[in-house]
Amino acid sequence: MLERLVYRFEEGRASMRDLLGGKGASLAEMTYVGLPVPPGFTLTTEVCRLYNANGKVLPDGIPEAIESEMRVLEEKTGKRFGAADNPLLVSVRSGAPVSMPGMMDTILNLGLHDGNVDGFARLTGDRRFALDCYRRLIQMFGNVVMGVPHDAFEQVLARARSEQGVASDAELSAASLERVVAEYKAVVEREARQPFPQDPREQLMRAVRAVFDSWENERAKVYRRVHKIPEELGTAVNVQAMVFGNMGDDSGTGVMFTRDPSTGEKVLYGEYLPNAQGEDVVAGIRTPLPIGRLEREAPAIYAELQRIADLLERHYRDMQDLEFTVEHGKVFMLQARAGKRSAAAAVRIAVDMVKEGLIDRETALLRVDAQQLIQLLHPSVDPSYTGGILATGLAAAPGAATGEVVFSADEAERLGKQGRKVILVRTETTPDDIHGIVEAQGVLTSHGGMTSHAAVVARGMGKPAVVGCEAIEIHAQQGYFRVHGREIRAGEVITIDGTSGRVFPGAVPLTTPGLSGEVQELLGWADEVRRLGVRANADTPLDAQRSRELGAEGVGLCRTEHMFMAPERLPVVQQMITAQSREERQAALDRLLPMQQHDFYEIFKAMDGLPVIVRLLDPPLHEFLPAEEVLAEEIARMKAEGAEPEAVARKERMLASTRSLREFNPMLGFRGCRLGIVYPEINEMQARAIFQAQAQLLREGFHPVVEVMIPLVGLQGEMRAMDDLVRRVARQVMEEQGMELDFHVGTMIEVPRACLIADELAEIAEFFSFGTNDLTQTTFGYSRDDAEGKFLREYLEQKLLPEDPFVSIDERGVGELVRIGIERGRSRRPDLEIGICGEQGGDPATIDFCHRVGMDYVSCSPFRIPIARLAAAQAELRERDAAKAAERAEVNQ
Amino acid sequence: MLERLVYRFEEGRASMRDLLGGKGASLAEMTYVGLPVPPGFTLTTEVCRLYNANGKVLPDGIPEAIESEMRVLEEKTGKRFGAADNPLLVSVRSGAPVSMPGMMDTILNLGLHDGNVDGFARLTGDRRFALDCYRRLIQMFGNVVMGVPHDAFEQVLARARSEQGVASDAELSAASLERVVAEYKAVVEREARQPFPQDPREQLMRAVRAVFDSWENERAKVYRRVHKIPEELGTAVNVQAMVFGNMGDDSGTGVMFTRDPSTGEKVLYGEYLPNAQGEDVVAGIRTPLPIGRLEREAPAIYAELQRIADLLERHYRDMQDLEFTVEHGKVFMLQARAGKRSAAAAVRIAVDMVKEGLIDRETALLRVDAQQLIQLLHPSVDPSYTGGILATGLAAAPGAATGEVVFSADEAERLGKQGRKVILVRTETTPDDIHGIVEAQGVLTSHGGMTSHAAVVARGMGKPAVVGCEAIEIHAQQGYFRVHGREIRAGEVITIDGTSGRVFPGAVPLTTPGLSGEVQELLGWADEVRRLGVRANADTPLDAQRSRELGAEGVGLCRTEHMFMAPERLPVVQQMITAQSREERQAALDRLLPMQQHDFYEIFKAMDGLPVIVRLLDPPLHEFLPAEEVLAEEIARMKAEGAEPEAVARKERMLASTRSLREFNPMLGFRGCRLGIVYPEINEMQARAIFQAQAQLLREGFHPVVEVMIPLVGLQGEMRAMDDLVRRVARQVMEEQGMELDFHVGTMIEVPRACLIADELAEIAEFFSFGTNDLTQTTFGYSRDDAEGKFLREYLEQKLLPEDPFVSIDERGVGELVRIGIERGRSRRPDLEIGICGEQGGDPATIDFCHRVGMDYVSCSPFRIPIARLAAAQAELRERDAAKAAERAEVNQ
Repeated sequence: MLERLVYRFEEGRASMRDLLGGKGASLAEMTYVGLPVPPGFTLTTEVCRLYNANGKVLPDGIPEAIESEMRVLEEKTGKRFGAADNPLLVSVRSGAPVSMPGMMDTILNLGLHDGNVDGFARLTGDRRFALDCYRRLIQMFGNVVMGVPHDAFEQVLARARSEQGVASDAELSAASLERVVAEYKAVVEREARQPFPQDPREQLMRAVRAVFDSWENERAKVYRRVHKIPEELGTAVNVQAMVFGNMGDDSGTGVMFTRDPSTGEKVLYGEYLPNAQGEDVVAGIRTPLPIGRLEREAPAIYAELQRIADLLERHYRDMQDLEFTVEHGKVFMLQARAGKRSAAAAVRIAVDMVKEGLIDRETALLRVDAQQLIQLLHPSVDPSYTGGILATGLAAAPGAATGEVVFSADEAERLGKQGRKVILVRTETTPDDIHGIVEAQGVLTSHGGMTSHAAVVARGMGKPAVVGCEAIEIHAQQGYFRVHGREIRAGEVITIDGTSGRVFPGAVPLTTPGLSGEVQELLGWADEVRRLGVRANADTPLDAQRSRELGAEGVGLCRTEHMFMAPERLPVVQQMITAQSREERQAALDRLLPMQQHDFYEIFKAMDGLPVIVRLLDPPLHEFLPAEEVLAEEIARMKAEGAEPEAVARKERMLASTRSLREFNPMLGFRGCRLGIVYPEINEMQARAIFQAQAQLLREGFHPVVEVMIPLVGLQGEMRAMDDLVRRVARQVMEEQGMELDFHVGTMIEVPRACLIADELAEIAEFFSFGTNDLTQTTFGYSRDDAEGKFLREYLEQKLLPEDPFVSIDERGVGELVRIGIERGRSRRPDLEIGICGEQGGDPATIDFCHRVGMDYVSCSPFRIPIARLAAAQAELRERDAAKAAERAEVNQ
Repeated sequence: MLERLVYRFEEGRASMRDLLGGKGASLAEMTYVGLPVPPGFTLTTEVCRLYNANGKVLPDGIPEAIESEMRVLEEKTGKRFGAADNPLLVSVRSGAPVSMPGMMDTILNLGLHDGNVDGFARLTGDRRFALDCYRRLIQMFGNVVMGVPHDAFEQVLARARSEQGVASDAELSAASLERVVAEYKAVVEREARQPFPQDPREQLMRAVRAVFDSWENERAKVYRRVHKIPEELGTAVNVQAMVFGNMGDDSGTGVMFTRDPSTGEKVLYGEYLPNAQGEDVVAGIRTPLPIGRLEREAPAIYAELQRIADLLERHYRDMQDLEFTVEHGKVFMLQARAGKRSAAAAVRIAVDMVKEGLIDRETALLRVDAQQLIQLLHPSVDPSYTGGILATGLAAAPGAATGEVVFSADEAERLGKQGRKVILVRTETTPDDIHGIVEAQGVLTSHGGMTSHAAVVARGMGKPAVVGCEAIEIHAQQGYFRVHGREIRAGEVITIDGTSGRVFPGAVPLTTPGLSGEVQELLGWADEVRRLGVRANADTPLDAQRSRELGAEGVGLCRTEHMFMAPERLPVVQQMITAQSREERQAALDRLLPMQQHDFYEIFKAMDGLPVIVRLLDPPLHEFLPAEEVLAEEIARMKAEGAEPEAVARKERMLASTRSLREFNPMLGFRGCRLGIVYPEINEMQARAIFQAQAQLLREGFHPVVEVMIPLVGLQGEMRAMDDLVRRVARQVMEEQGMELDFHVGTMIEVPRACLIADELAEIAEFFSFGTNDLTQTTFGYSRDDAEGKFLREYLEQKLLPEDPFVSIDERGVGELVRIGIERGRSRRPDLEIGICGEQGGDPATIDFCHRVGMDYVSCSPFRIPIARLAAAQAELRERDAAKAAERAEVNQ
């Protein structure tokens, strides 16, 4: 069935977003609600798909449809498109089903030409205005449709300003603008090798095609990749009668949020630029007024805006991001969409709206992007820090970040990919800077407001940003910025605090905020809804404590090797590894025992009453030894310096151990329970440390809940041998201590074979924890360390992979093995406790998967606990929705 | 249900082998057939299991049952056990359900003691004989039951021989033996701290227990591991009235095969030792007569043996390995079992028996151990070799081998495990040497015959052996052997030819025999039966040619990287890898193109009319570059020597490439089609070489059948991209050459994910080839290179793994993924061609699996082609048998 390809605004509704795009659907809905919207029509996303499939040719009938819709517009407005007198001007704007702010093109004022600019001047009674509109048209059309660089026009404008001796474009006189128009046309002819088209119909058709083309421009593609927006969506194109914010001081243009998008406070929030057209605000070139100023300065307009805001919030039951133009005091709505917001704002708005009766708790839970909650636990500058600041700008995106100063997006990308932390410092950012922002820790700009490109993009990515920090004076070419007489050069370290807007020299101590009352409230609701448990991957008592505060219901993964790495312990660990005899190894282990026991004691205590899964030693032993080259050099140096022969011999033994432990593929080598099979005494020590800590705590009145996890099991025999070992040690400790100890022994499932023989493993293992990092490596045959640098990025760019499988679980491959593992495991032991402890355990899409496949819990890093709590609730709610939908479908059958 | 625990020989049958053991069942069957067998009874394997489960205590009732059976024996023989006059003597022998020659213990002459040796002498009329029997009892009982070292007795004997001035034990006088007996008893009392037991009933009970104990001695365990015999089987124990081969020159003992076990020729083959007891033959201490000599020297005995041999062959329909004793001219049978045989003999006997009407073709096909066929293609010394030999011994086990001389089994094991090739050189071998033979390339002994331990064991393992090479004089302690005045020291290299019996100094050129007429005939039958196709893994025209001669029906895997490694090409390959630009890389590729094209031309030609699967480049590129250290040193040296700066720069570039290509886990790194995605030009060159070679051959009238295989695919997008690439190049070549080319594009399935998304892959891939080497590595998470040295051996010893999964496919894990892959692949493309090309493709157990899961073919190394042909037929026959059995079961329901 063919979709209808063209809709007038009054024919559409908000629900038709996929077809009409966000802007088109919004204009239709606002028209429907009775708000003042300039009339127009929408070419649907289907036209875009046909256009692209068709080799960039508009589908049959579309040019004719545009013609006929233009006649309808002419009737509605009483104006005529291209006419010398009373001409109808239109805008052509993109509008995809998913918001991609600033990514695609817009052209305003179409319909002006040499033959009617005078008539338009007469009509509006403002020759300056008419010329300004015309020069804007030439500039936008020249740039977007004809590919003339922006700079070429800016140079003309700058010259005009300096010739007339004024600071802003708004001050240019009609005479100046007349020259600008002439020069603009010359620029176009020179750069594009063809004149600016004088036929308004040609203008319109070419503008429509150019906006469809902009769906596939580079920056839009990057944006879609970063934001995971499917290529097939396409954009709609809206053709709309122009209204003018640049008709003098009783006109203007603005964007506003119905609530504060940073804090969520219920107050109109936004910016208004008098005597300007929309692109002036978005570009952030002139600094606009806060919207609140209108309350005093133009109370009627403010009241009208407030009325519209309230009406739309009630209508959409969500915070709105509005674009409007005021023409001679009358407000026209150009766009209404759900507003982007910080995590804090998202939570506050959701919670407030529940209290205001606008939405229910379930909606509130689904309203907040779980992933975004990471921002709440983003670092901020330690409040006790008393060092000086460099400057203060607008707090555009919360969180703090430290990094080296870089002045170009390319440089940010290059260094960022090398793993260096950088802060991108720009006068302002443009969509062409996206690739640099992606790789930077944060963004600092000297110009632009809260809705400038830098601010919007950084907020979207959850990166700290300070914008409009006018005190800094950037000399990118020379590689430094100046601030209050001080020079900061590229490569120097600064810290920005996007929560307060402050910029600091050097690296400043950062702390992490707790969770606000609203967040606690929302997460409390989430806890009531969710079925999945949430545990933390925590290796230290501090991590355990912190994750418990964040709502963890236990430790899902306590990695014991990190304890081995502590500087005071490493020599003992090395002694154990290089031991020449079982006795020598035992001696080292005897020294490690009390240290490990102490660790476990503290972690169990921090998690008192909640389960703690301790994983026995996992990494290959050579990870604890210095690199071969380093040792060889050290030995050579010691010998040259005449060191004690015994010391040299000790080093030489270590070198020999390192060499004998060297592996071709350590990921697939001698590690995990394989170590325990060959050197059981290491795991015996660990088991003893675990059970002695447990006994000690029990005696002190605590309630340790102990689970021992065997890593890298792939054979039933391994599970049996290690289970035997752990239980043997437990019996010994119970006997020595004269008390009963309760515990479980289970396994980490991290190789494909373990999934396939999960039934055999479940005969012995009392719990499974999917280690999806390694499972992803073995299922794909990817070494993560190698793949990321060598081919994974290329694969993501070429879309061979839809996602980085180390971030979100690969449902089709890895997920399938997980499903098999769960099914077979439970077939043998129906009450098998099953969780996930790979890094993906804190990823919302993965959590949704874990919910669907019936896991008992997810375990993730402490900072991701709130995400996991919310994502788990959302998974449950989505499941309920799906069940209801299925029920309805059944009833209708 | 409890099994009956004790059977008289006349109560059993051959079919009761599991319960009675091989020897017991054989004695029962021979008794049943009416052959002369000394009477006796069998304690079943169930007794052994109960004994072991019971903490090495004989089950209740067994001592009583033995007593009562002894009374039956007394009645049958008219003698009394332990009586002073006319005493009954018995042997106690092990006998497991599976033959384990020489692994477990035997005790003869039980029932003699100080109180009846004179009576026995009177009875036999031979005091010397009686004393000899007694000293043998003390020696065997002392060694086996009481743990007295063999040497302690041998020293006594040696002293006696030298005191009496004779060379052999048989010449010892009664007086000498009297002293020997006295000294033996003293030795026992000294070494075992208790006297030799004089109570015959105690002797018997302790002997029975000792033989049960021997099931779990070290050498038996090693043997079972090597021969994959389950621990649970247990051994039976046979108690049998003694007959005596050592009653003078009309007595003797022998072992014989009903056909020649080396060649299969239908002639009695074996050895006879006059005036001796059985263990004298097996130990290989005295050199026995060939059995054929009896035809002249004792025609009656020979005729009786021939009669018995014919009767047993007709009865068992297989070649028999017989043990017998001649007492005063009367033949007594002690054992009949299917004879071990060389591969050549196995084939010839099977084929001959079909012609003789003894068996049908199906039985013949199942009769030959497919794995053993590798021997037929074992190397032998190049017939044209004219260099000198060191000596000639008995050609005990076919094949030739070269290696360093070692004089102890421990040393052979140590060096062998390091990957060094060694020849174990011993005076004679004993079961304690098994672990050394396993690791040696071959065995050379100075003593012993064709049925000596060394000969039997080496044949069983398919290792070359030369035995009884009396010209060599071994001074193991001093680390050399002397031969014809020449000294060969430990570590020097020699070559042995077990097919001819020759021993050569140094490494000698070896060639590989073809297949005999009988083998061709048998394999022809196999080809008629089997459903699986058989292809070869062949990288060179020579390999392709050879594998075609051996019956390959195509090339299942042609690895193109081996072509890159040729010395004259490597520099060009390196130039390609280190290229700084696409142009430079292309220039190198342009030079490689004609070389690759030539390779493919020759391989396609060798396989004319048969399919050839060419795999595009697979290994990580750094495999083609020198090691970093080597390069760094070379650069340092070049600089020091003032080499041309350009040459140094070239090396430095190579070093930089090596470093940038360095990987943590190359197995899981940047290789396979990942290379092709990032550097498509390499695969483009390869595809062009393939299609140009194909076009050239077509033009010359050949019929190349081309299949292009994409390695390491795990994503549908990879398959699509590589398929596009190959087809694009094919179209180009077709256009250039003005001809149509027919070909298929498929993929190697080597990562778990590929199995899981096999349906997606089969949408594009026209064939699958399971690369089970890598699939095993990823499924288990084992790096083969690391696992073998680090933990795999330990895993096999601890029985965590039943088999090395790199040798025989792991059905439960890897096999499960293969099943999933086949099912999903065929679900999307029912005519998908599916094969295996991992090393396991030539392993009979794996081939059986491949048959069962419905693959189309297996591909293996050329020398394994005959194995694969036979194993594929056996798989089909086993399936038919199973189907018939199922049918019968259904009918009976």
